[in-house]
Amino acid sequence: MKTDILIIGGSAAGQVSAMTAKSAHPEKNVTLIRREEKVMIPCGIPYIFGTLGSSDKNISPDAGLEKLGINIFIDEVLTVNKDEKICKTKKEETFSYDKLIFATGSEPMIMKFIPGHDKENAFTIPKNKVYLDVLQQKLDKLNKIIVIGAGFIGVEISDELNKKGKEITLIELLPNIMASAFDPEFSELAEKALAERGVKVLTGIAVKEITGDKSVNGVILNDGSKIEAEAVIMSCGYKPNTALAKETGLVLNEYGFIQVDRYMRTNIEDIYAIGDCAEKREFSTGKLSKIMLASTACAEARVAALNLYELSTVNTFRGTIGIYSTNIGNTSYGVAGLTEAIAREDKFDIITGSFTGVDRHPGHLEDASPQMVKLIIQKKSGAVLGGEVYGGKSVGELINVIGFAIQADMTINDLLVAQIGTQPMLTASPAAYPLIKAAEICAKKMP
Amino acid sequence: MKTDILIIGGSAAGQVSAMTAKSAHPEKNVTLIRREEKVMIPCGIPYIFGTLGSSDKNISPDAGLEKLGINIFIDEVLTVNKDEKICKTKKEETFSYDKLIFATGSEPMIMKFIPGHDKENAFTIPKNKVYLDVLQQKLDKLNKIIVIGAGFIGVEISDELNKKGKEITLIELLPNIMASAFDPEFSELAEKALAERGVKVLTGIAVKEITGDKSVNGVILNDGSKIEAEAVIMSCGYKPNTALAKETGLVLNEYGFIQVDRYMRTNIEDIYAIGDCAEKREFSTGKLSKIMLASTACAEARVAALNLYELSTVNTFRGTIGIYSTNIGNTSYGVAGLTEAIAREDKFDIITGSFTGVDRHPGHLEDASPQMVKLIIQKKSGAVLGGEVYGGKSVGELINVIGFAIQADMTINDLLVAQIGTQPMLTASPAAYPLIKAAEICAKKMP
Repeated sequence: MKTDILIIGGSAAGQVSAMTAKSAHPEKNVTLIRREEKVMIPCGIPYIFGTLGSSDKNISPDAGLEKLGINIFIDEVLTVNKDEKICKTKKEETFSYDKLIFATGSEPMIMKFIPGHDKENAFTIPKNKVYLDVLQQKLDKLNKIIVIGAGFIGVEISDELNKKGKEITLIELLPNIMASAFDPEFSELAEKALAERGVKVLTGIAVKEITGDKSVNGVILNDGSKIEAEAVIMSCGYKPNTALAKETGLVLNEYGFIQVDRYMRTNIEDIYAIGDCAEKREFSTGKLSKIMLASTACAEARVAALNLYELSTVNTFRGTIGIYSTNIGNTSYGVAGLTEAIAREDKFDIITGSFTGVDRHPGHLEDASPQMVKLIIQKKSGAVLGGEVYGGKSVGELINVIGFAIQADMTINDLLVAQIGTQPMLTASPAAYPLIKAAEICAKKMP
Repeated sequence: MKTDILIIGGSAAGQVSAMTAKSAHPEKNVTLIRREEKVMIPCGIPYIFGTLGSSDKNISPDAGLEKLGINIFIDEVLTVNKDEKICKTKKEETFSYDKLIFATGSEPMIMKFIPGHDKENAFTIPKNKVYLDVLQQKLDKLNKIIVIGAGFIGVEISDELNKKGKEITLIELLPNIMASAFDPEFSELAEKALAERGVKVLTGIAVKEITGDKSVNGVILNDGSKIEAEAVIMSCGYKPNTALAKETGLVLNEYGFIQVDRYMRTNIEDIYAIGDCAEKREFSTGKLSKIMLASTACAEARVAALNLYELSTVNTFRGTIGIYSTNIGNTSYGVAGLTEAIAREDKFDIITGSFTGVDRHPGHLEDASPQMVKLIIQKKSGAVLGGEVYGGKSVGELINVIGFAIQADMTINDLLVAQIGTQPMLTASPAAYPLIKAAEICAKKMP
């Protein structure tokens, strides 16, 4: 089959690049090949196990793709001939392309260094409905579950399984949960929230072994202590799916991601890479990064699709900011850009300021929540390097306010006199809006 | 008494300027004079009548001022001698100042052209606790109430009194409620939400007369029809309190606001004006504006206070964006910058794009709400002139994301590839984030 634009991979990056490509170049034929019959909404996966109750409620629909006339094939690309511009698939189809986009995603890292990682009832969290359905069926019958690795996925799955009444122990090697995303004061709030909800949280300790005969019966920690469990979920990060890319001749970086420029172009002409499989660079330093986020993937997908035939956006994607948020019960957590810890590690000369207020005004309105904002500011320039937010559900968009401040190169002075909208039922007070108050605190520390 | 920085007025602008001034210039003596014993949180006033239940729950505390060592006097400045730099008060005190800030606020407009406007039980909504307490006591005993004027205050008060089981009719002269803030499609959603909650909404019709012997018994509309009521609330806007400013020799603009420059300096050296009494200019055109918002007042207060002794922020307040939001039941509404109607009136050559999605993903999560975003874009430059949002409570911060896009001069291209953070429980999906999708729709219409 002959197509103009061929996309390999059907998750967030693949979908958005297909839709944006078709929308921006309506005269082109756009084809998407993916392995999965049904696509999981990636960030929705933890919620299958509690709130949603089933993977069927977490399916990313094809309607948007179909409406635009994008061809979808459930198949797997096995080889790419970059000279003839042809892909061959498992179902023995041949696709010729003009532009090829790798959106091959990522897969869970398996902790091969932990003995017992391959026992029965030792699971990972891949973005694969078939696997997840089996996992869920098994977990339904079990009670004691250990989650290893307290990144966003590990934290969210722990909280969701806990909602279902399971006895959950969450184990994290680093001193805090979500420690690579948040500074300790935010992680500690999240630890407290999880503990209050009944999740047992162990930090600063490693799992030495996963025990059991055939099937998991617990873990042994580095200090020799044992914890019983009927299942273990390993959520220790993801690695890019780049085997096909490597065989195709695409250059991978030292972390195994496909090297790309700011327009998501690889080293081979007419081949692009986006999403979890594509190289990321940190926004403020340009350093290589391993961030994997559906929202980043979607931004990359748009950049690639808009610039396939000519460069129509200029310097609009100079790096990945990394804007995350999550929710534990009545508390939510958001981060954009660099944390204080990472900024210091990167040798930035920084000042920080935190302010805690309330996200409604007056503060005793019914669904009010404390709201804490922390800003990380480069000392001499006043540039906003990062921000963290704790509070109610408005955190999800408030962190995007900070994200925009970072990508628009706003400085502490801009924030000091920034105009914000406030409303009693929806936001903090204009006189004590935590983002602005945190900026004031930073400003006082400026040289 | 001798003070360095003297502030007249104790609402949002006065408070924030006092705190910012003291914080930025800790060696200075800061004094605030206000008429009210207890200060109302301005935007919280409508909520006194329903959700809060009492003005006592809507008091802006003095703790923040006191903690910083700001002197507070409950008094009224009667005269300002600009040459001797002395104020005299009702309580016969004399205050000498180095810097003087007018934060004298605004008061409700009275519809003197409507016969009967001065009858008993015909009320306005001033920011005055004593008046509001009397009003609330009276309304408690009444059932049928007419609200004239459907700006934010009129809409919010109608909804709150309706919550208390009152029979409310909201009457608006313009074709839609909140018509000067929103384009019709948003106003219509708000009208529908109000109506579903039991508020009778009449638009496009004027009140000819307020009837009754001594006390209100109803209104007669322009079409001759009569509506019975035991009370009328007139919420037809506010006018700046500038009598003292005028007597002092400050120049007022054609709308009666105190003329100021970008640093809130008036025509008299060392006298500043901020908040509702100070001149506003529209952000994108520089045209005079009558916008009065607590959040704008707070931004102006910061600009004035930071720049009292030397200009420390540059060009950071080039005009008022006007970022509003409100809430009616499960629906919320936000606007930043120009609406389509106002942009066209201003002769901007614009394109607009709207996208409706869901503010959670997957969309059937429990507290999910439809979310509509509309963008107003200048055609040739791609500059973001304005945005409107309808949705759940996250609207309150999402409109600030758009507000930041406007003040950071982001263009449609920046939005197209903007990085946003998304999370199932907190935001729309990254693949169908309404703000970005609306930008895509605009981009397709670009020349």
